[in-house]
Amino acid sequence: MPRFNLSFFQDLLSTISEQGHRLVFQNVVSGSGQLVPELVERLLSGQGEASGIALARELLNGYASLDQNEKREFFEFLLNNYGPDHDAIASAVQKYQSQPEDETAIQLFEASEPRRQELLRRLNLASGATASLVAMRSDLITFLKDNPALKAVDRDFYHLLSSWFNRGFLVLRRIDWNTPAIILEKIIQYEAVHAIKSWEDLRNRIEPKDRRCYAFFHPALADEPLIFVEVALTGSTPDGIALILDMQRTPSLETDATTAAFYSISNCQVGLKGISFGSFLIKQVAEELKRDLPGLKDFVTLSPVPGFKKWLDQERGLKKSEFFTSADNELLSQLENESWLDEDANGELSSLVLNIASRYFLEARDPRGRLVDPVARFHLGNGAQLEHIHWQADCSFAGLSQSYGLMVNYLYDLAVIERNHESFMSKGLVVASAEVEKLKKTKKTKQRNRSERDV
Amino acid sequence: MPRFNLSFFQDLLSTISEQGHRLVFQNVVSGSGQLVPELVERLLSGQGEASGIALARELLNGYASLDQNEKREFFEFLLNNYGPDHDAIASAVQKYQSQPEDETAIQLFEASEPRRQELLRRLNLASGATASLVAMRSDLITFLKDNPALKAVDRDFYHLLSSWFNRGFLVLRRIDWNTPAIILEKIIQYEAVHAIKSWEDLRNRIEPKDRRCYAFFHPALADEPLIFVEVALTGSTPDGIALILDMQRTPSLETDATTAAFYSISNCQVGLKGISFGSFLIKQVAEELKRDLPGLKDFVTLSPVPGFKKWLDQERGLKKSEFFTSADNELLSQLENESWLDEDANGELSSLVLNIASRYFLEARDPRGRLVDPVARFHLGNGAQLEHIHWQADCSFAGLSQSYGLMVNYLYDLAVIERNHESFMSKGLVVASAEVEKLKKTKKTKQRNRSERDV
Amino acid sequence: MPRFNLSFFQDLLSTISEQGHRLVFQNVVSGSGQLVPELVERLLSGQGEASGIALARELLNGYASLDQNEKREFFEFLLNNYGPDHDAIASAVQKYQSQPEDETAIQLFEASEPRRQELLRRLNLASGATASLVAMRSDLITFLKDNPALKAVDRDFYHLLSSWFNRGFLVLRRIDWNTPAIILEKIIQYEAVHAIKSWEDLRNRIEPKDRRCYAFFHPALADEPLIFVEVALTGSTPDGIALILDMQRTPSLETDATTAAFYSISNCQVGLKGISFGSFLIKQVAEELKRDLPGLKDFVTLSPVPGFKKWLDQERGLKKSEFFTSADNELLSQLENESWLDEDANGELSSLVLNIASRYFLEARDPRGRLVDPVARFHLGNGAQLEHIHWQADCSFAGLSQSYGLMVNYLYDLAVIERNHESFMSKGLVVASAEVEKLKKTKKTKQRNRSERDV
Amino acid sequence: MPRFNLSFFQDLLSTISEQGHRLVFQNVVSGSGQLVPELVERLLSGQGEASGIALARELLNGYASLDQNEKREFFEFLLNNYGPDHDAIASAVQKYQSQPEDETAIQLFEASEPRRQELLRRLNLASGATASLVAMRSDLITFLKDNPALKAVDRDFYHLLSSWFNRGFLVLRRIDWNTPAIILEKIIQYEAVHAIKSWEDLRNRIEPKDRRCYAFFHPALADEPLIFVEVALTGSTPDGIALILDMQRTPSLETDATTAAFYSISNCQVGLKGISFGSFLIKQVAEELKRDLPGLKDFVTLSPVPGFKKWLDQERGLKKSEFFTSADNELLSQLENESWLDEDANGELSSLVLNIASRYFLEARDPRGRLVDPVARFHLGNGAQLEHIHWQADCSFAGLSQSYGLMVNYLYDLAVIERNHESFMSKGLVVASAEVEKLKKTKKTKQRNRSERDV
Repeated sequence: MPRFNLSFFQDLLSTISEQGHRLVFQNVVSGSGQLVPELVERLLSGQGEASGIALARELLNGYASLDQNEKREFFEFLLNNYGPDHDAIASAVQKYQSQPEDETAIQLFEASEPRRQELLRRLNLASGATASLVAMRSDLITFLKDNPALKAVDRDFYHLLSSWFNRGFLVLRRIDWNTPAIILEKIIQYEAVHAIKSWEDLRNRIEPKDRRCYAFFHPALADEPLIFVEVALTGSTPDGIALILDMQRTPSLETDATTAAFYSISNCQVGLKGISFGSFLIKQVAEELKRDLPGLKDFVTLSPVPGFKKWLDQERGLKKSEFFTSADNELLSQLENESWLDEDANGELSSLVLNIASRYFLEARDPRGRLVDPVARFHLGNGAQLEHIHWQADCSFAGLSQSYGLMVNYLYDLAVIERNHESFMSKGLVVASAEVEKLKKTKKTKQRNRSERDV
Repeated sequence: MPRFNLSFFQDLLSTISEQGHRLVFQNVVSGSGQLVPELVERLLSGQGEASGIALARELLNGYASLDQNEKREFFEFLLNNYGPDHDAIASAVQKYQSQPEDETAIQLFEASEPRRQELLRRLNLASGATASLVAMRSDLITFLKDNPALKAVDRDFYHLLSSWFNRGFLVLRRIDWNTPAIILEKIIQYEAVHAIKSWEDLRNRIEPKDRRCYAFFHPALADEPLIFVEVALTGSTPDGIALILDMQRTPSLETDATTAAFYSISNCQVGLKGISFGSFLIKQVAEELKRDLPGLKDFVTLSPVPGFKKWLDQERGLKKSEFFTSADNELLSQLENESWLDEDANGELSSLVLNIASRYFLEARDPRGRLVDPVARFHLGNGAQLEHIHWQADCSFAGLSQSYGLMVNYLYDLAVIERNHESFMSKGLVVASAEVEKLKKTKKTKQRNRSERDV
Repeated sequence: MPRFNLSFFQDLLSTISEQGHRLVFQNVVSGSGQLVPELVERLLSGQGEASGIALARELLNGYASLDQNEKREFFEFLLNNYGPDHDAIASAVQKYQSQPEDETAIQLFEASEPRRQELLRRLNLASGATASLVAMRSDLITFLKDNPALKAVDRDFYHLLSSWFNRGFLVLRRIDWNTPAIILEKIIQYEAVHAIKSWEDLRNRIEPKDRRCYAFFHPALADEPLIFVEVALTGSTPDGIALILDMQRTPSLETDATTAAFYSISNCQVGLKGISFGSFLIKQVAEELKRDLPGLKDFVTLSPVPGFKKWLDQERGLKKSEFFTSADNELLSQLENESWLDEDANGELSSLVLNIASRYFLEARDPRGRLVDPVARFHLGNGAQLEHIHWQADCSFAGLSQSYGLMVNYLYDLAVIERNHESFMSKGLVVASAEVEKLKKTKKTKQRNRSERDV
Repeated sequence: MPRFNLSFFQDLLSTISEQGHRLVFQNVVSGSGQLVPELVERLLSGQGEASGIALARELLNGYASLDQNEKREFFEFLLNNYGPDHDAIASAVQKYQSQPEDETAIQLFEASEPRRQELLRRLNLASGATASLVAMRSDLITFLKDNPALKAVDRDFYHLLSSWFNRGFLVLRRIDWNTPAIILEKIIQYEAVHAIKSWEDLRNRIEPKDRRCYAFFHPALADEPLIFVEVALTGSTPDGIALILDMQRTPSLETDATTAAFYSISNCQVGLKGISFGSFLIKQVAEELKRDLPGLKDFVTLSPVPGFKKWLDQERGLKKSEFFTSADNELLSQLENESWLDEDANGELSSLVLNIASRYFLEARDPRGRLVDPVARFHLGNGAQLEHIHWQADCSFAGLSQSYGLMVNYLYDLAVIERNHESFMSKGLVVASAEVEKLKKTKKTKQRNRSERDV
């Protein structure tokens, strides 16, 4: 594997340092991208330590001025030139094998660290660099599909960002009508579950006394929420989203509330993909609310079921599904026509769909053996339990096209959360309420209906 | 190497999670320390993810309740049980050797990471944990002398802390009379160069218009400065510390100043030993000052020479020093008696000592081939140059007993800082002013003086 | 004049203080309004000093629960019962006349203070009271038209509010995209010159680098701007509003700007009517901008001419105007049809209207001898000078219906502001640019145009 | 009364405005003080409105540069030239007498306002002026003794400052170890009851968990507390000051406290003399503490008795006191020798002194018919009650020389505070505990003791 031609850069560098700061910068900005490599080398070589911050800043600016194609090339350059140092590894392996001890193992660890990691640490010297690195990774992620080899580079980003965005560094802040607009507009932009249509819609979710919104922030990303959750304080577990988002409703007193309903959780930063904040957020918000409002008894979500429709449609296309009969399938064909929305919620169709949905959660598994639904995996993995499944609970376009309008409540019972978590993790056990278990066992089928009619 | 007996803990754990949160905690606090191991295992096992924060908090509290002996045992426990996983390494080495590629190298890297690093990351989940981990390392450092094997554990602390305390996360704040007392008392406590004797002394250093003090802070250590620097804004390069610290002096206008004299830099956190902030601090403060006060032309230090007396005394004890003659040595014996302090500063003794001092910086090296003086290594390594050496510049007890009262100015000339840094780093070249170079060449010896008189 | 029946209240009061805090409050809240009088009396009597704050709070809450009619009655109650104390005045007058000295004059001053003023001071004991008193006065102002006698009450409010909202207590704050939404929505709501149509419109005015917005705040009214000004930083004096408000324009660099154009100033608080903040605001913002952006040379307004159309229409209805001929009037009839908007801006009509407009500013006066235009009175009174008059500069509905689309620039030249102010105040002199003076002297009439063509 | 010679100033002014800002200022600063009068006149005349802020700033700077003598002359100048306008009053009186109505009364009020009040309002236009005006009044107060006529000027200052420093504008802030040093040093400086000897002493009062300190601030005096109170959270009502101020004591848990003891209240601003904040402060702090620490049951003071020794010494000098017999007086002569401090606290002397002290509070009155003790007047006037009198409770030099070491507790029982206040204010009734009432009735005298023994 050909390494970087240092003598060429050495020459260049002496010229550059003669001409000083401006020229390097200008060439990078000119978009040729050719000088980025030297910047990388100088930053890593440590020769430039005295001006490490300035070098890091230049390189970040240089990167920002690249077009999409050049950015991809930049990551490929990192992939090809700043991965593990195989000479160093070979020598460390040899040493380890002759003396397999902790000391030599640690040397092996240090020798095998891809050089990119040190590069990222040094880039982070510049003030504001953390935000730039998060943005850089969000670019990188878009290239992974076409060039899976770049995953090695992504792993280095992930390694450092997950250390830097450790829970211990996050700050929980309430989002309300007193929050600066620059943050609020990002809440509007990042809401991923129930789109916020306008500033009035936003206000309706954060200003009334019976609404809350909290976000995690990182000190190095001042105006950027990392993840946020929207909460409705209610008198009972909500069974649909429409009433919660209703712009005309009359707010009630927060002190009357018995239930905190987490109805939307959105990750904000693509560049932090894979670093999980949601579990911490829900638990800390629950504690915060509990302290403020001792009247709160239940902490539940009102969650979408984003994988249900796709899964059901697939099952229906199979010759034979293990979750329903052909007669059922015929009944399900009503779902192909929107008129089913006007039908009785207590009818055959609803009974059937709820029965299938309960089995979707309790029995269906994807090829990797996991629960099909990603939202279910998240909450059950957090130790929540599946409490209710609601029929026609989100009849928006998104709700219908993801889950035929179903929504569910996951219950966060702090007393049993850890036990649930452990049995889910170790044995894959889904803890569900008696109600959901019952749904699994009953369905009004045509037959039964007929026989009822016959009687 | 025997690994942790998991089945034993498994049993314990099931009991513990039955009995819940309180019991575990109480046992740890009771100081027996016996349960700390399970906490470590549970935290690392990830079984306890749902309550990761609570586990981390418990373990940190548990640690804090240990006595010195138990703490040492705790680190030894980490040393013996949570180092590299040799089985995993062996298998990764094998894989790498059969396919020496980036992918297998990265797997080798991941396999050889000591498990302690993941433990530290998970401990940091708890809010306030970063401060606890810094404190933990400052304990650890005290054990290194008696048990050097613990350096392996220390390397893991260092690895993570240096990533978390990356320059990009630090915040520069001015310290003045408007700063909360809780921080000011730490400035008093941490000042390591010229001790602050009282709140009045502190005030004299931070309130007058011609004084500045800046510190780096980390968002996770709110009330703890990491490092701070004290600056005097003056009309010329200061040649002694007494006038700067004088409580009776009349402050001058900051806008009249031409020189910023950095007369004290103190690291504050033992637990961050080896993570260097000083170079960044000096440069950022210089930029900040330059922006605020465009009249500033020179950025110099007024620095102690902490290694000089010890070195000189050693040289004097040698049969023959390469830095002075036996006649010189006789003259130097005046230093053994305090009366030399009353002598003429332009006399033979001063001339001789300054000559030797210049060679102390320019020629003397320690057994590892480095400059003898640690402060000189720091500033010259930052790219500063040695500008002046001052006779009887710090006649305090500390000044006399470290350096026979010498102090020096290092000049930070931003235009050449990087060039200086590079020639110092690559070739060990000490950049010194013409004045210092001249000192090296001249000394008034008795002989020469006589012969001059004879002429 | 019948005074308050104290014995009746005395009885009531003893009962009330027996029954304690709640009852009084409940009755007031019940909306009967009957108990407000005793609260007033108790608060003023000072008997209740120990609980002055609670009393004031109760009375303010009691007031807030009144309906419109009751509020009017409340002010009439203050008018009739808490005005000047005529017995006390009579006795102070007698004393003054027998000894007309400073001391007796001061006693006369104190005796003749309406008791309402002390009442307002005591109401202000409660936290949050200042905002309530401002709101109270804004109610009061709506009653003045039907009951002019209430002006005496209003004078007491004005007296105290103008002292409390003294310039020395105001705080200037920049409004930008980092400002909390709770304040931004008030900017939208209070903008009185060029309505803000949406949050996007707002953002367009405060976020770009070449836009500024500043407001005065009072510490006792935390989230309420008192007055604000919107500024465009431009390369030349703007001659129309459309480009400034254009949502599609490309912002320019603030450092390139030579001109700060104040294009909108809005008072926010009806309850502070008559207390003038605008002059201070403009001058302080001008100083602030000058300090930040030394490249700024000109400080001008782009102002509406809200009185022009009404005045011109009146003049046109007169048998004979002193500002134009009958032939002119015929030409002006084009203004009755919107098609004039399509005509050449350099034509006869524009020439005529600009000529008349210059005389509207320089010569026309209202029956009280003042300049007709209120905006002109404001800026010229501040010491600005009339710089330009722009044809078709605001073709919005509001612009056309107030001023036939005219706008003007007033120039704030800090060097001559005071001289201008003084000559305007003492001699009514309007300082205008040569350009405006020239407009006054020239108009292209049909005749002249013809003769020009004839030549 | 000759008025200001305007034509003379007119001339001067035209020259000045020609020469601009600097000259006026320089002359004032030169300390001649001669030009201050014109500044006053210009500021009041309103001619200078356009530059009102600059004028006000100049005048305040001019004042600050005066020496003591010139300052006195300045106030005399205000006294003689800017008092009530007698011509205007005469005409307003005439009008009122012919039409004695509200409207003419209000005109009389406005005509009789001393012109100084408007001057003060206009001075307050300048930013920072409020602090300057408070400082100005503190100068003025020092001149009142020698020139009582200046009280008329002081009344104007008082009138405006008491309106501006209305309770509604004050902000309560906790003072603790997180407070900026610039404020803490003022706490040290202003403590008027139990002097704070060092920063360590201060820390001992504000940092421990069972200590609190609160102050009122005004937004226009950012770093200046107006009044502050120090509180000890204890398990019982304290009977002496030594334990509270003990530097060696072990702090207890705040949540264990049942009693909040207000052991020191200090006014900070001489210039706000006569404007009472203490009552509001105690009540608001009591409410704040009650909310934070629901376990608190009693709110008491531990107060000095500053008038006792002086009063007792006077009584002892009388031929015959109504508060003790000649035999008692003989016993009291023990107080003249410090050895009484070693005597039994349950002896005759203590019994006698406590008996007399109870009558000092309950019966003794000053020539104006008031309670002799100013601290007692303050707390009883607030509605507190006299709970305990403690023997040898403050044996510091100050304690002995003011009160022969006595201290007392006043109890703030929020439920009866207003009733107490009213009966004290209207009927002069001192509400005291049964214990204090009993002290009044009993004393162990030698005689009685003997006769008791005889029996």
